[in-house]
This record gives sequence, structure tokens and C-alpha cells, in this order.
Amino acid sequence: MTTQPLSPTPRSTVRRGRRRSVTDRETLYSILDAGLVCQLSLVLDGSPVVLPTCYGRVGDTLYLHGSTGAASLRALAEGARACVAVTLLDGVVYARSVFHHSVNYRSAVIHGTPTLVDDPVTKLAGLRAVTERLAPGSWDHARPPTQRELAATAVLALDLAEAAVKVRAAPPGDDEEDVADGTRWAGVLPLDQRWGEPEPCPLLPGDSDVPDHVRRRAGQALG
Amino acid sequence: MTTQPLSPTPRSTVRRGRRRSVTDRETLYSILDAGLVCQLSLVLDGSPVVLPTCYGRVGDTLYLHGSTGAASLRALAEGARACVAVTLLDGVVYARSVFHHSVNYRSAVIHGTPTLVDDPVTKLAGLRAVTERLAPGSWDHARPPTQRELAATAVLALDLAEAAVKVRAAPPGDDEEDVADGTRWAGVLPLDQRWGEPEPCPLLPGDSDVPDHVRRRAGQALG
Repeated sequence: MTTQPLSPTPRSTVRRGRRRSVTDRETLYSILDAGLVCQLSLVLDGSPVVLPTCYGRVGDTLYLHGSTGAASLRALAEGARACVAVTLLDGVVYARSVFHHSVNYRSAVIHGTPTLVDDPVTKLAGLRAVTERLAPGSWDHARPPTQRELAATAVLALDLAEAAVKVRAAPPGDDEEDVADGTRWAGVLPLDQRWGEPEPCPLLPGDSDVPDHVRRRAGQALG
Repeated sequence: MTTQPLSPTPRSTVRRGRRRSVTDRETLYSILDAGLVCQLSLVLDGSPVVLPTCYGRVGDTLYLHGSTGAASLRALAEGARACVAVTLLDGVVYARSVFHHSVNYRSAVIHGTPTLVDDPVTKLAGLRAVTERLAPGSWDHARPPTQRELAATAVLALDLAEAAVKVRAAPPGDDEEDVADGTRWAGVLPLDQRWGEPEPCPLLPGDSDVPDHVRRRAGQALG
């Protein structure tokens, strides 16, 4: 696994909150491999648009997918630039002052121009990555995509070269006078994301067991 | 409280997944009042940018804040258009086919041109809304912002007139043949977000109690 540092361009250089900036590639991977949904932004008809969507990662490539009929996917397939954010919220930081209230988080923001994946093998690998990010084990358990389903699905590849990673995992950063005052509470209230119990589809045969790849996720923490 | 329906423009009309589209304003409010972080996108130097940030709502106005020095805030204060997404992920939908895998979610996407809030009373109300969304009770407990802190903070107001709301809360939507086949599991694995136990700041006096407004949140589900 590569440990090449991120190489920020002017666009991906963290300007606000520099001390939260992280420049190692492993942290980028760990955020992408913990999140489930990204926020895909692009410019459509001159206006910014942001869309929540699923994604997958293979090495230094992020894969996105969607209907070939979607205006956003069509624009990206034709060369529009994109910016993709994956944000994991870990807690709320209660400071002694309103001003220093904050959140603990892990954030990756990727800039680039996605390319439409034409090659059938790469397209399947991209779809597999998206499926396995969302539902590990499903690619082998579920019915594979048909040619018709594949034809209706566009897969885009976005290089992870240009990324900005920020992490805050710390107690409040209050001013000295507020700390010295000592009358106000401060601390972190963590936010946990956890998988619940599987809810079987009502149309399943009555004797269907929950398969291992789903069962083992239940009760586990996300990311 | 108004129950005026959302009035979609061409930009906010849901084109993909129309049956997930929701057009009542109460659902928009409920999503915004359950989320903690939004994704703010805009066009900077011709490229799309998306930034996770906090927000608050008062009536039909969404408030955003940030440093007066941030390039994104400056661009918006000067009239750049914005698109803001709040996404709540409720579970992964395991379908019998890879193609029908999905997520259960609540999504609000708002389009508009934010305005810089100059009026000091409205600015404080906006900051209060942002603080109270993140940390209810903190506005009254924590030290209020100083004039210097207020001068360093820009507050933007975004009208909620143009919004697209989508909700998926359903079992898998598999093809009939796959349901009839009956050999593959399908269902929903819910994802729960829950507040953990407060982690007091190490610099607090030893006898500091966790105040009620923090304590009562611990163990509760988000949204």
C-alpha cells in the first residue's frame, strides 16, 4: 500500500484551520473506507449542485455511479469538474465560549475531473467497489448486474491525487481567560454510528436466515 | 408554523427517483432540525467546491457562519450562488440484486443565493440558531460572543424557498423474478446515530458537574 503524501494544489491546500490539516494518504484512505455516502458537487447550468451519493475506492481511484439518464452524471461524463466530500462527524465540542464551539470530525474533500469508465472489466470493478463499500459481501451474495442493468448505469472514476484531509479529535480549544474562570462546563459529547438489527424483507420465504455478511455487521460501530 | 408546500423550480425539481420526492415543508424542517452538519457547495474560481459546515434554521431561513477571512464565505457574501445539502443516512438496503442495492435516507437540498447578515440583532439570532442546532442549551450556558469575535464571524442567510426533499424508508425494491427466486437474502440494516457519554475537558475544575443540557442528550438517538 502506498504511503505517498498528499500533494496539495492551491485548490486542495487547507487554508482555514491549518492545524487540522492532515497530509498523509493513509488518513485519506481510512476516511473514505469508513464513510458510506459522499457529497458530489459540480456546476450545472452555471449553478453549484451538491448530491449525496454512494461511492467506492480502489487504490487511488474513487468510483461513483448513477443512472446514465441523470443530468449530473451526463455533465461529469462530458468533462465537468467535480468536488467530492466525505464527512464523518465524531462529536460535538462544547466550549466555555459560544465562539469556540466546534465539532470533532474526519473530513476528506477531493477535487478533480472524473472520467467515464468504458472498459467493461474496470466498470465491473468500480461497481463492485461501490457495492462493497455500502454492503460488504453483497457482490458475491446478490444477483450480478445484467447487461441491461449495466447499460443503464454510468460509472465514473475520480483520481485521488488532489485531496484535502482535515481531522479534529480534541477537547475544546478555549481562551485562557475562559479556562481560568472555571464556571462554565466544557467537553466533548461523542456521536456514535452503529448498525442495528437486520430487518428482513417482508417478501422473503419464512425460513430465510440472515446471511453472515449481514449478521456480522449488526451492532458494530461504523468506521 | 407554516405548512406551505415546497415550490420547486426547474433546479429543485426532483428528476431522478421521483417517487422518493417529498413536497411538504414540514419534512424539510424535520430533516434540517435533525441534522448537525450540512454540505455547502459553491463555485470558486470556476470550479465546484463542497465544504462541510454547521448551520441553524429559523423559520424559512437557514443560517451559515464562518470566518470573515474564508474564501468561500467571502464569495458568498459577494453574491455567489450556493447549494446546501443535509443528508441523514438511516440504513443500507440489501437487495436480492446488486442493481437494487440502495440506502434509506432523508435528504434536503437547498438552492439559493445567501445574503450577508449585517443587522446585529439578526446576526446574533443566526449565530444562536447555529449554536443551538449543534449544542442545544449552549447559547445560554456558554460565554456570549465578544464584539471582536462577532467582527471575525460572517453570518449568511439562505432562504428555504427552493428546496428538494427526498426520503427513502422502505424495504428493497427488487424485480419480481428475483423475489420469486427466493434464494437470496434481502432486507434493511438500520444505521443508528446516538450520543455517547460526555467527555469533560481535562482543564475543568475537578468538581465540575456535567450540566443538564449536555447530560440529557447522552444516550439519545440523533434526529
